[in-house]
Amino acid sequence: MTPIELLKSYKGKVFDNSPSPFTKWLAPTVIDASEGRIVFEFTVRPEWLNPMHNIHGGVTAAIIDDVIGTMMFSLGEDSFYTTINNTIDYFSVAKAGDKITAETQIIKKGKQFVHAECEIWNPDHTRMIARGTSNLFKTSLQK
Amino acid sequence: MTPIELLKSYKGKVFDNSPSPFTKWLAPTVIDASEGRIVFEFTVRPEWLNPMHNIHGGVTAAIIDDVIGTMMFSLGEDSFYTTINNTIDYFSVAKAGDKITAETQIIKKGKQFVHAECEIWNPDHTRMIARGTSNLFKTSLQK
Amino acid sequence: MTPIELLKSYKGKVFDNSPSPFTKWLAPTVIDASEGRIVFEFTVRPEWLNPMHNIHGGVTAAIIDDVIGTMMFSLGEDSFYTTINNTIDYFSVAKAGDKITAETQIIKKGKQFVHAECEIWNPDHTRMIARGTSNLFKTSLQK
Amino acid sequence: MTPIELLKSYKGKVFDNSPSPFTKWLAPTVIDASEGRIVFEFTVRPEWLNPMHNIHGGVTAAIIDDVIGTMMFSLGEDSFYTTINNTIDYFSVAKAGDKITAETQIIKKGKQFVHAECEIWNPDHTRMIARGTSNLFKTSLQK
Repeated sequence: MTPIELLKSYKGKVFDNSPSPFTKWLAPTVIDASEGRIVFEFTVRPEWLNPMHNIHGGVTAAIIDDVIGTMMFSLGEDSFYTTINNTIDYFSVAKAGDKITAETQIIKKGKQFVHAECEIWNPDHTRMIARGTSNLFKTSLQK
Repeated sequence: MTPIELLKSYKGKVFDNSPSPFTKWLAPTVIDASEGRIVFEFTVRPEWLNPMHNIHGGVTAAIIDDVIGTMMFSLGEDSFYTTINNTIDYFSVAKAGDKITAETQIIKKGKQFVHAECEIWNPDHTRMIARGTSNLFKTSLQK
Repeated sequence: MTPIELLKSYKGKVFDNSPSPFTKWLAPTVIDASEGRIVFEFTVRPEWLNPMHNIHGGVTAAIIDDVIGTMMFSLGEDSFYTTINNTIDYFSVAKAGDKITAETQIIKKGKQFVHAECEIWNPDHTRMIARGTSNLFKTSLQK
Repeated sequence: MTPIELLKSYKGKVFDNSPSPFTKWLAPTVIDASEGRIVFEFTVRPEWLNPMHNIHGGVTAAIIDDVIGTMMFSLGEDSFYTTINNTIDYFSVAKAGDKITAETQIIKKGKQFVHAECEIWNPDHTRMIARGTSNLFKTSLQK
C-alpha cells in the first residue's frame, strides 16, 4: 500500500498507524485524502486548553505543523522533508469537545522546496479558526 | 502572591500550578523568572517525537507559544492577551530524554500590542534549536 | 465617488490618484477591483532589481504590503487600518520589463482585525512568484 | 578589496557601489560593518510615505530585505543566497526627513541555511520601528 492508499484506508477512522508518535497523540480522523491535499478532523481535548478554556494556540500550531507533515509523507517520496518555518494566524476559538477540521494543501512545489498551507475550520465550515503555512525543504535523507 | 512571585516560587521545580491545562501537560521546570523574561526547561518525551525520532516541530511551536503565554500571564496585568500570530523558525533537533531550554522575552510593549520572542536552546546554550515570535493584543476581557 | 468606484474607474489604466505617495511610485495598473478583492499589474523596472537582475525581494514585499493597503482603503471604511505584520514567501523570479500581477483578497474580517493575502503571478497565471499575508488592525483614527 | 572591506571603506558615506540596483535606489549610509553584522542609516524620502505621511510599511519591508541581502553579500562567499521568506513586524512610525537605522545580524548560520534579523530604530535607539527576519538558502549558483 502506498502512503496515500494507507491514509485513504482510514477514511472515517482515527489514523493510529502513523510513523509519528506525536501524530498518534493528536489522534486525527481522516476525512479526505488525495495527493497533495488532506482533510483531518480533531476533537478538542481537556489537556489542549488555555486558561480561558479555549483551544490553546500552541495546540493549534502543533496540529497545523503536524497535518502538513502528514501530507508531505502521503506524497510517498523517497526523501524526508524538513520544515524550515511555520507561520500561524489565529482568528477564532474552539471549546473542549468541539470538533475542528484541518484542511491542508500544497500551494507551491518546486524541486527542493514546498510551500504548504493548512486551515482550521469549525465542522460546518462557517468559521475559520486559524491558518498556517510552512516552507519545507527536501533533504538528501532517504526513507 | 503575584503571578511573578508564584513563578519564582517554582524555581528548580515543575510548574504544575498553571491555570492553563496545556501548560501542565508540557510540565515546564522554572529556571528563571523576572518581569518580561522567563526561562523554562523541558524534557523531550516519547510522544513529542516525529517519524525521525526528533522533537516534532509542532511540539516546538506549541512550547514557544505556551511559554510566551505564561510570560504574559506573569506580568500580572488585569486584562487577558490574545495571540494574533506566531512565527517559528527551525534550526536543529533534540532527541527523546534531551532537555531543552526556552528563553522568552518581550521585544516591544505598546499600549495595546506586545511583541515577544522565545528561543529554544540545548542545555549548554551552544546550539539554538528554534526561535519564534508572537504578536499579542490586550483584550478588554478582565481576569 | 466611493473609493471602490474610484479604483474601478482606473480599470486598464495606471492608478495615479492614490493618497499614498509610495503607491504612486509603484504605478500599478488596475486590472480588477471589487469589495475585498483587487488585481493590479506592475511592470518590473530597472531600479527594482537585485544583483542577479531579478526583481528584488524587497520590492516584491513592498508591492504585497502596498496592494493589501490599497485594498483596505478601497473598503471605504471611516477608520484607518494599521499593519501589524507581513509574511512573504518567495517562489520564483521576474526580469526587468516583465509584467507581474498582484491578486489581493481578504481571508478573514473580524470587528477589529483583518487578515489579507496577496499573490504575485506571472501574467498568464502559470507561475506564482511570491505570496504574502498581513494582519491589520482597525485604529480609532478617523479618515 | 573583499566585500566587507568595500563596505567598511564607505563608512559615513552613501554606499553607491552596490551590485544591486534597488540598494542604490535606497541609498544607505554605512554606519558600521563587520562580518555578519552591518548597520545602515536611511533618510525617509517623500516617495516612501503612506497616506498618513508615515514611512510606508512596504518600504520598511524592502529596507529590511535589502539590508539582510547586503549583509549576506558582505560575507564574501562564492555562492549566491536566495531568500526563502521574510517576516516583518511593525511597531512605530517615521516621518519624511527622519533618519532611521537598520541593524542587521546573523542569528543562525548552518551549512545550507542562514537565519538573519534586521531591526529598524530611530537614530538615538530609543524606539524600535520594525523588526524582520529572513531565512536564506545557499544556492549552487556561483558568483
